Amino acid sequence: MTPKLRRFLDEVRPSTPCLVVDLDVVEANYRALATALDGVEIFYAIKANPAPEILTRLVALGSSFDAASVPEIEQVLAAGAGPARISYGSTIKKEADIARAFELGVRLFAFDSEAELSKIARAAPGARVFCRILTNGEGADWPLSRKFGCTPKMAKDLLARAATLDVVPWGVSFHVGSQQKNPKAWDSALAEAASLFRELEAIGVELGMVNLGGGFPTPYRSDVPEIGAYAHEIMEAVRRHFGNRLPFLIAEPGRGLVGNAGVIQTEVVLIAEKGDADGRRWVYLDIGKFGGLAETMDEAIQYPIHSHRKGAPVPVILAGPTCDSADVLYERAPYTLPADLAIGDRLEIEATGAYTTTYSTVGFNGFEPLRSYYI
Amino acid sequence: MTPKLRRFLDEVRPSTPCLVVDLDVVEANYRALATALDGVEIFYAIKANPAPEILTRLVALGSSFDAASVPEIEQVLAAGAGPARISYGSTIKKEADIARAFELGVRLFAFDSEAELSKIARAAPGARVFCRILTNGEGADWPLSRKFGCTPKMAKDLLARAATLDVVPWGVSFHVGSQQKNPKAWDSALAEAASLFRELEAIGVELGMVNLGGGFPTPYRSDVPEIGAYAHEIMEAVRRHFGNRLPFLIAEPGRGLVGNAGVIQTEVVLIAEKGDADGRRWVYLDIGKFGGLAETMDEAIQYPIHSHRKGAPVPVILAGPTCDSADVLYERAPYTLPADLAIGDRLEIEATGAYTTTYSTVGFNGFEPLRSYYI
Repeated sequence: MTPKLRRFLDEVRPSTPCLVVDLDVVEANYRALATALDGVEIFYAIKANPAPEILTRLVALGSSFDAASVPEIEQVLAAGAGPARISYGSTIKKEADIARAFELGVRLFAFDSEAELSKIARAAPGARVFCRILTNGEGADWPLSRKFGCTPKMAKDLLARAATLDVVPWGVSFHVGSQQKNPKAWDSALAEAASLFRELEAIGVELGMVNLGGGFPTPYRSDVPEIGAYAHEIMEAVRRHFGNRLPFLIAEPGRGLVGNAGVIQTEVVLIAEKGDADGRRWVYLDIGKFGGLAETMDEAIQYPIHSHRKGAPVPVILAGPTCDSADVLYERAPYTLPADLAIGDRLEIEATGAYTTTYSTVGFNGFEPLRSYYI
Repeated sequence: MTPKLRRFLDEVRPSTPCLVVDLDVVEANYRALATALDGVEIFYAIKANPAPEILTRLVALGSSFDAASVPEIEQVLAAGAGPARISYGSTIKKEADIARAFELGVRLFAFDSEAELSKIARAAPGARVFCRILTNGEGADWPLSRKFGCTPKMAKDLLARAATLDVVPWGVSFHVGSQQKNPKAWDSALAEAASLFRELEAIGVELGMVNLGGGFPTPYRSDVPEIGAYAHEIMEAVRRHFGNRLPFLIAEPGRGLVGNAGVIQTEVVLIAEKGDADGRRWVYLDIGKFGGLAETMDEAIQYPIHSHRKGAPVPVILAGPTCDSADVLYERAPYTLPADLAIGDRLEIEATGAYTTTYSTVGFNGFEPLRSYYI
């Protein structure tokens, strides 16, 4: 936690649960990524945290933006981004939403199916389109399913078809999986992308862009490689597969820009021994899966959790405050908290700047959505 | 779907996604349950759907209410319920919230740990308390974890302790698991409850109440037994285990009162073949896991889904509109939709009156929360 965050929590003592984000950390992350990935245009994945304060800061730094919906496009336009800096990166769009984005000036659209390509050609004539290909998510904490992307073979056919419609077949995208821990994970997808460039060129369709997706990790309980290691491996792979005809490159970091910039403060509501054999304490917090910590699903993301107490660490099960029995944060993961932890204590859940506020439910069990502060 | 719901959807054509609830179905469910469970006081589990229209209707019918938080207590008071008809049924409460509920007139509180009992004794002097015991969730679509309840042995100790504090040890509760399909599931828990009554009486502590919990199912894709079958088995088990000294009985239905009263209308955003071996179509809707269908987690709850098309049924994978790869509704469950289904079609997701609106996120991917209508 940065001194600025610590000071805010100590001085303001906001009521819990709440998220506090240090915008200077977001800025430092952006600068580090932009420096490491020199020549790659960065499109911030708005869905990670669409707070106006974050968008405004990133607009000022020169970032571009990846939007998942028309409301996200409107939010980032309101924050001062020009429409030329926006990619409508969802592959699942209503035709009316494509038309609305086009009307707002957006000219870059994703697709991964014939039907979506046809919608874009009808609703956004002349726009640039890129096709998302399927990759496997090995090495990622949060592997992506087959929900997105088509096979490279289908991508070739669809991009060739795009050339016959009123759109510009502009490139290829992929996603190596969120919180990707292996800097070499981009290699095979880049090889596929380069093959597609060559095969399409052979039939007269010249692509220009490769979208490296997101996947850049934030440190949770285990260390992750430095951003420089990712940049090195990615740029090496690009050169290896594309030779000296380098494509225009873009990337869509979300978690990698805002994850470690935020901390959630929560209150211990109850500590209970349940009289069963296991012997671990149940520690119930005032935030859970439905109040913003949805990414604890299957215990995929394991946030660092800190107490100011100094007692010996004892094993705990961590759960949220709702009446939903699925609202357990960590039962298999080996979490410990100090033996002298007390009801009413505040805990800090670190690295919670991404994928928390907007995942919060509108009011499950009557609890209000996660409050947040941007400082 | 009732004719009233059909007419509303046809005439109003609300924009999608939206939930429409037929309040007459809620009323019919309440009357059927109250008739079947004659002599059992019904506490509606507000968390299932806290819409003011539902609460108002149930207040008029004479229902009592199970609240999970202070905001839920305030909502049902605003709907006209007196505080004597409210149970604060969460076992995880901040002491300040217990005090606030007490101030609002609530006099019935749940606990399952020593710490929670102590909080209630301090913050709600003189109130009635009941202890939740652990049961297994066999037979339920949504088995409950060990998050709630303590062992019967611990319950005995805690209820005996309650008698030494400024609270009234009033009874025992349990939950046989949500969407419970086995009417005999209450038997073993009732046996445990009766044992506790006898053991505590032997040491001079006389309990009065058994809380049967919820678990009453709503029909999704598979049939469930009639409410009469549940009532018969439960009342038989009560008589078997308690003899002619019947306790005061309460139940906490949520899903069983509102589940089948609602229908969600959604639009087909995209139908895609992904070029992979499986061959199934991907059908993407404008609602998914983060827009209200959280209970599709692990495909636990399988809602009936209807199209007006008449084409031959073909296997589909159903997914939501967000960029989250976890936002897939049904991939393993064998869903089919008509071969002539088209993008832009509206589909009806039935039996969605419970656990949908409040599970909706505040705006993940920029999508607004689920709209709802109560007619």
